[in-house]
Amino acid sequence: MSEIKMNELNIKEDERLHVLNHSCAHLLAQAVKHLYPQAKFWVGPVITDGFYYDMDLGDAVIAEADLPLIEKEMKKCAKDGKNIIRQEISKAEALEMFKDDEYKIDLINNMDENETVISCYRQGDFVDLCRGPHVENTKQMKYFKLLKVSGAYFKGDSKNKVMQRIYGICFENQEDLDAYLLYLQDARDRDHRKIGREMEIFMLSDLVGKGLPLWLPNGYVIWRTLQNYITDKEIAHGYQHVHTPDLGSVALYKTSGHWDHYKADMFAPMVKMDEDNEDMTLKQLLEGIDKNKIDDVYVLRPMNCPHHMVIYGSKGHSYRDLPLRIAEVANDFRYEAQGAVKGIERARCFTQNDSHIFCTPEQIEAEFKGVLDLIMEVYKDFGITEYKCRLSLRDPADTEKYFPDDEMWNTAEDSLRRVMSGLDLDYFEAVGEAAFYGPKLDVLVKPAIGNEVALSTIQLDFLLPRRFELNYINEEGEKKTPVVIHRAILGSIDRFVSFLLEETKGKLPLWLAPQQFSVIPVNPNEHTDYAREVTERLQREGFRAKLDDRNEKLGYRIREAQVKKVTVQLVIGDNEVNNKTVTARRYGSQATETMDFEEFIKAMHKEVDEKQLAK
Amino acid sequence: MSEIKMNELNIKEDERLHVLNHSCAHLLAQAVKHLYPQAKFWVGPVITDGFYYDMDLGDAVIAEADLPLIEKEMKKCAKDGKNIIRQEISKAEALEMFKDDEYKIDLINNMDENETVISCYRQGDFVDLCRGPHVENTKQMKYFKLLKVSGAYFKGDSKNKVMQRIYGICFENQEDLDAYLLYLQDARDRDHRKIGREMEIFMLSDLVGKGLPLWLPNGYVIWRTLQNYITDKEIAHGYQHVHTPDLGSVALYKTSGHWDHYKADMFAPMVKMDEDNEDMTLKQLLEGIDKNKIDDVYVLRPMNCPHHMVIYGSKGHSYRDLPLRIAEVANDFRYEAQGAVKGIERARCFTQNDSHIFCTPEQIEAEFKGVLDLIMEVYKDFGITEYKCRLSLRDPADTEKYFPDDEMWNTAEDSLRRVMSGLDLDYFEAVGEAAFYGPKLDVLVKPAIGNEVALSTIQLDFLLPRRFELNYINEEGEKKTPVVIHRAILGSIDRFVSFLLEETKGKLPLWLAPQQFSVIPVNPNEHTDYAREVTERLQREGFRAKLDDRNEKLGYRIREAQVKKVTVQLVIGDNEVNNKTVTARRYGSQATETMDFEEFIKAMHKEVDEKQLAK
Repeated sequence: MSEIKMNELNIKEDERLHVLNHSCAHLLAQAVKHLYPQAKFWVGPVITDGFYYDMDLGDAVIAEADLPLIEKEMKKCAKDGKNIIRQEISKAEALEMFKDDEYKIDLINNMDENETVISCYRQGDFVDLCRGPHVENTKQMKYFKLLKVSGAYFKGDSKNKVMQRIYGICFENQEDLDAYLLYLQDARDRDHRKIGREMEIFMLSDLVGKGLPLWLPNGYVIWRTLQNYITDKEIAHGYQHVHTPDLGSVALYKTSGHWDHYKADMFAPMVKMDEDNEDMTLKQLLEGIDKNKIDDVYVLRPMNCPHHMVIYGSKGHSYRDLPLRIAEVANDFRYEAQGAVKGIERARCFTQNDSHIFCTPEQIEAEFKGVLDLIMEVYKDFGITEYKCRLSLRDPADTEKYFPDDEMWNTAEDSLRRVMSGLDLDYFEAVGEAAFYGPKLDVLVKPAIGNEVALSTIQLDFLLPRRFELNYINEEGEKKTPVVIHRAILGSIDRFVSFLLEETKGKLPLWLAPQQFSVIPVNPNEHTDYAREVTERLQREGFRAKLDDRNEKLGYRIREAQVKKVTVQLVIGDNEVNNKTVTARRYGSQATETMDFEEFIKAMHKEVDEKQLAK
Repeated sequence: MSEIKMNELNIKEDERLHVLNHSCAHLLAQAVKHLYPQAKFWVGPVITDGFYYDMDLGDAVIAEADLPLIEKEMKKCAKDGKNIIRQEISKAEALEMFKDDEYKIDLINNMDENETVISCYRQGDFVDLCRGPHVENTKQMKYFKLLKVSGAYFKGDSKNKVMQRIYGICFENQEDLDAYLLYLQDARDRDHRKIGREMEIFMLSDLVGKGLPLWLPNGYVIWRTLQNYITDKEIAHGYQHVHTPDLGSVALYKTSGHWDHYKADMFAPMVKMDEDNEDMTLKQLLEGIDKNKIDDVYVLRPMNCPHHMVIYGSKGHSYRDLPLRIAEVANDFRYEAQGAVKGIERARCFTQNDSHIFCTPEQIEAEFKGVLDLIMEVYKDFGITEYKCRLSLRDPADTEKYFPDDEMWNTAEDSLRRVMSGLDLDYFEAVGEAAFYGPKLDVLVKPAIGNEVALSTIQLDFLLPRRFELNYINEEGEKKTPVVIHRAILGSIDRFVSFLLEETKGKLPLWLAPQQFSVIPVNPNEHTDYAREVTERLQREGFRAKLDDRNEKLGYRIREAQVKKVTVQLVIGDNEVNNKTVTARRYGSQATETMDFEEFIKAMHKEVDEKQLAK
């Protein structure tokens, strides 16, 4: 068994693996040079999960199918057992050595002025510029694998030529390599984009736009179920829901501060052309907007705090009205880089399960605890049992990074600590990780694949209510500024669904499954009447059931229901018809269970009502 | 009793009232001239509901409070009984006559070249340019009323000076005037903006932006109830719901045709600034977008048809999959003129209850009928009993206005006629009213105030599926283009709520009411325990109930519940506590009913489940 936790693998930071992988990049280059003598190489760095090498192969194109051949050549070079020899040369010697290679010349010419000595590494017939260090002999590389090939712009600039980038990874033993490949396969199987395609959860379309997923009927069942679930739960916790527009004037985001600090991540503002502005350049327009010389300009919102501030501010409040918990399942828009968008996990439009709690400083503690209770209730429903709480505090020495109000900070941080230590909940403090506007608590979850994510968050904010000049009248009749608590439980519904799909591999609990039942008559000519009766009864009971009475083989229909990850398949044959029973088989299981139909319905209602986890 | 249906009043088109109101505008001007000798007049036209006159009063400003004084002067002028005398003069004479009045000179100079003779009308000391005709004597104007005063840009151009505009109306008898003023008061009482404010349904904020309503907690209760209502109803009718992004690439709207035909009504496109475009003018940018020279530009969607076309097109379809009914409660955005926006009735962002049915030509009839059934089911739930169906057909003689495919049109129109005549439903045909892309049926409703509106619509579309190259494989294995049926039942949720508020004056049925119950202990010190028990029990039963145990007088708390239009007030006194009963009083009623609490809960569940109309 491998001793590395593949989920936490970081080759860049593991000294031995770093050297090994860096050396393996050279081995790759050597092999490629043997097979493609015209090859020229740019850079070949180590990354978290292995290494890559960018290369120019002239007219040749390497496909995934070519990788085994290259691997074979790498094995040959490794077996050769050449020593890997470091050589130090002057810049002039380097330029002479690589005089036919424009990439190396570029590298040499762009080196730090102070670097007068340049190192290169030689192994047999192959030599490459490199800082090193490397392993001593090519024989030391045995357990490697080339993973994929892709295009990459020279120097990452889209105006430059596209080079070919080959990715690989190298371990110290076969067990680790096998474990990694297994992990990789698991990650591929769990990828929500793959599962989303199989289950028809969402689709992407370049015509609609990059990073703008469309939720298909199956996906919307999950989406709507989650929306209603969290809304009902919040109502039970005393939240009031609102529905606010997806856009706002630039003036709104100037008031909130987003325009000054967050503009780069927002969509571009919408400027309607008229005779006054048609001859202004885009730059002039944006400068005009910045300087308040052009108004009545709208922009998609990156978050909905400003709208909620406006709602609070629209009428007078007494301390008796507080806490006021305004919530919204709200669309937000962020102009993520094209390369950063990823299915529904990271999109340019998404839906936040957001809320802002307006309260007095004295209420912070109780409200904070209330939100934590809500988070734990929700996590329980989804079977999320492994999480860490990070309490992010300010660094009092850093006077620049934090909103200046010592008393407020001390009071708030003390309250949060008090809440946390009073709960049966592990947490750690992270000094200097607070937001500019206040301390926060993030609940971190380590997903089955990928890095730790902050699923839920609770943030205190002293600043935004001041920017919007919000107030309430306290018991003494004085005007006071309320504190705002930003909080998200599911985070974004979209990202939460991607998380669920990856954690469960699409095996969703019954209450969330897009299709809960597939009713399959063994012989469509004989068993369809009862099968239809079963289906329609299930539908009347509010379940999502479909009849599959197509003239296809039983095995084919069962297999298809499995591919679509239908939670329960009900196969209806003579026994079922005669005894008014159903024979149920769960997705992913071979076992079947025959039950009286009425009993079965009761059991299914119980499973949905109790939000039981997938079986 | 007045014989005019005020709801259908159109003074412009009633010959006698037109002349009367036009004359009354002159009477207004004469009176204003007496009171403000510096007054100069621009135009004073007749409108649907009366007349107005635009005037320049120098530094003087007329407020609503000044209107009675002006009216008094008008009465005096009318009583004077001066004949109203038409005089025809040459352009030169006219210019001489009005030489000190820059507005009249402007009017005269801008008259049609062919108009060599100009008419003016004189009544006593007042003369005005006018085409006429007018009544013979000022005495004939007895039953008039000045209604309001507002600012209006000279010639409607926002770069020009703001003039003062006084509105008025004149009838032939006191009954009509009284009826109109009553109607006006009713319209004011019903105005959804007023009711929306009282019930805290929505708010508007200039900081958020013009025409962008924010739904407050009470409003969102209605909004969400309607969203779930219509979604569940559609699911029962075999619709599949999706959730698609609020924006799309300009390329998407070019494909659909919206960019070419609807651009003016859309929000401006979003162009992210980079070094390639920062020096381009707005005009160049838009031209570049038009000519496909600039892409990766996004725009808010004015409707969601294109997104649904993309979903249909994302996979292959067989005739066996059809009809496919894709539905969405979807945000749409239209750049309505600032002057045109009105509360939630007409906003720049709103939510459509939209669907697109993809079917074969043979299925049109059944689908059309299915949608009509759905409409009638929904109308029944809302007590909408008075409506008209308008079947809009093409004018076959007009070959420009309609998508050219005779066979398709004939088949489609025949199917629709067949459906309509097979139903027990009045309808009328409107030749030449079809959309470019197909015939349609609008369901027209005459609201309590304002003009007839098309609440629901069913539209056949032959064109959009072709533009998106959609297809299905028919029984013969051939590729065919599906027909698309666009349909909306509630129209936009926002406008539907404004309609409901105005029809019901805010007296909503129990199932829709934001606050269903206000539980009011007679003496908060004595009756609060049981009142709280009642409230919490109602909440557990899923009702929206609040306890009002404030230390305020009983009458005050009941009155406040009435102002907020809480459906049922439950007053809890000794009797109720001792007998475990509740005494219920409906909003808008004086009657009370005492019931056993358990019986009451059952009755309320029944009222909600059956969606009973307001009592």
